[in-house]
Amino acid sequence: MKPRLALIGCGRMGSRMARRWLQAGFHVTVWNRDREKAAALVADGAVLASTASEAMAACKVVMTMLANGPAVEEVIFDSGASADLASESMLIDMSSICPEMARDHAKRLLQQGVDYLDAPVSGGTSGAEQGTLAIMCGGEASVVDRGRPVFAPLGKVTHVGPHGSGQLTKLCNQVIVATTIGAVAEALLLAQAGGAIPAAVLKALQGGFADSRILREHGQRMVSRDWRPGGITRYQVKDLIAAQEVATAEGVGLPMLDQIKDLFATFQEHDGGDLDHSALLLELERRNPPQRVGDVPDQI
Amino acid sequence: MKPRLALIGCGRMGSRMARRWLQAGFHVTVWNRDREKAAALVADGAVLASTASEAMAACKVVMTMLANGPAVEEVIFDSGASADLASESMLIDMSSICPEMARDHAKRLLQQGVDYLDAPVSGGTSGAEQGTLAIMCGGEASVVDRGRPVFAPLGKVTHVGPHGSGQLTKLCNQVIVATTIGAVAEALLLAQAGGAIPAAVLKALQGGFADSRILREHGQRMVSRDWRPGGITRYQVKDLIAAQEVATAEGVGLPMLDQIKDLFATFQEHDGGDLDHSALLLELERRNPPQRVGDVPDQI
Repeated sequence: MKPRLALIGCGRMGSRMARRWLQAGFHVTVWNRDREKAAALVADGAVLASTASEAMAACKVVMTMLANGPAVEEVIFDSGASADLASESMLIDMSSICPEMARDHAKRLLQQGVDYLDAPVSGGTSGAEQGTLAIMCGGEASVVDRGRPVFAPLGKVTHVGPHGSGQLTKLCNQVIVATTIGAVAEALLLAQAGGAIPAAVLKALQGGFADSRILREHGQRMVSRDWRPGGITRYQVKDLIAAQEVATAEGVGLPMLDQIKDLFATFQEHDGGDLDHSALLLELERRNPPQRVGDVPDQI
Repeated sequence: MKPRLALIGCGRMGSRMARRWLQAGFHVTVWNRDREKAAALVADGAVLASTASEAMAACKVVMTMLANGPAVEEVIFDSGASADLASESMLIDMSSICPEMARDHAKRLLQQGVDYLDAPVSGGTSGAEQGTLAIMCGGEASVVDRGRPVFAPLGKVTHVGPHGSGQLTKLCNQVIVATTIGAVAEALLLAQAGGAIPAAVLKALQGGFADSRILREHGQRMVSRDWRPGGITRYQVKDLIAAQEVATAEGVGLPMLDQIKDLFATFQEHDGGDLDHSALLLELERRNPPQRVGDVPDQI
């Protein structure tokens, strides 16, 4: 028997996840602050709730997919909706929020007999559509196991540790993503400066040890100079700052993280905030005027 | 008709490449400074030459796979062997040397009517064995095309620009490899410091945007604490310095490259030079004493 699901947050990611669940035969009740986005899912079989509380009270498994921590805080807790969660229900927060806040949410919900998992994802809208998301899950093993049937249509779930560990793993993901983007951007700039053909270099590196999803997807964006997001630079900056905060709290110095955060933050200050994070190449070009790096046009 | 090949340099990479050619039906004459390594290939069908000159004079296509630039300089040029290259033959240098030197070798050989390609590789001994190397090739397009049948048994060749561009691309490869290793090491340290399980985090990240060959292979080495090379730290330092030299010569500032070179160079100074480059994690642990990062044993 499939549990009834509530989904709070039907944006770019949430709406695609809802369709995966509906296609898999789940009963899904949806709510979104901007009602239109939730209503659009009714045609796919979703039930529209008029308030978050109404959606949550009707279901044993409540999923949240909201923009950030403050949004989760406001919609679930400050609104009083959390009080309407049935005891023995579970809340699975798939939003990306800071690990500290996830641990706080876990504690508050456990006090009223509601189980909690933090389960942020990587893989973007294409991963959500195709059910190939990487889902990083923090919480108790038995609760993770109860959640597995719900995660199955979305992608691969991995239990990474106690409450907050899922969010911490998402930050680790962002550290690697941001740093790899920086490495690919520097490599392509070096290639161009030294007289090689960046598009050919990008192709040549595939299959070797430098190969990665970032090389293929974000490297291609750099070569095509396609800066439409995708992953937005100011979210990347926010995540890197959150990772630095955890590192500072734990007394760990991470020099590559510090360097890539500075690069992305400076890029944001130079009007890059709304571009795809692959556009970090523009920040490197800004620092290295075009007359010195061959024929790269000055795009900022 | 397959051209007769000479292979100068039958080490860990060269010997595996020779076997790929022999299996593909090429006639291969081999020479190596340490004769035993070349002689070991006779059982596979190779012909053993007693000098580099002898091997080179007998073949229209000469491949070199030596340790570094000075070794190529010594074995091919200083020894006088280059004078014995037949006119209208071609020398394909698959060693990793600096782009400047590759351009010089190209020029010197062209003066005696010998074509030249720089064609370093990425993919390691496993890539050489399986014929899945990424081959980064610099030179004239028509010469690259003549070389394609010879490259075919080894992996995927990409023409990346004029002479020296193959070597430049290899440096770009190393910038990405080194930086990604740094990112994965920092992410795993952050995960452990924050209370997640590094081995599970490594698994969770696979399939998301952080996924890469480095994450899977070198991340696994970090979790298993297996520092047997693989890719040796001091070679990584050498390559990163070579990349910095190109960047400086072209007037390009690359902050991520500078940061990762400093990290690897410091690790080398702390006795890490002979370990696999994934052991950069040890350098980060050294900077972050174990009592502050959970239960990581102090391994240096």
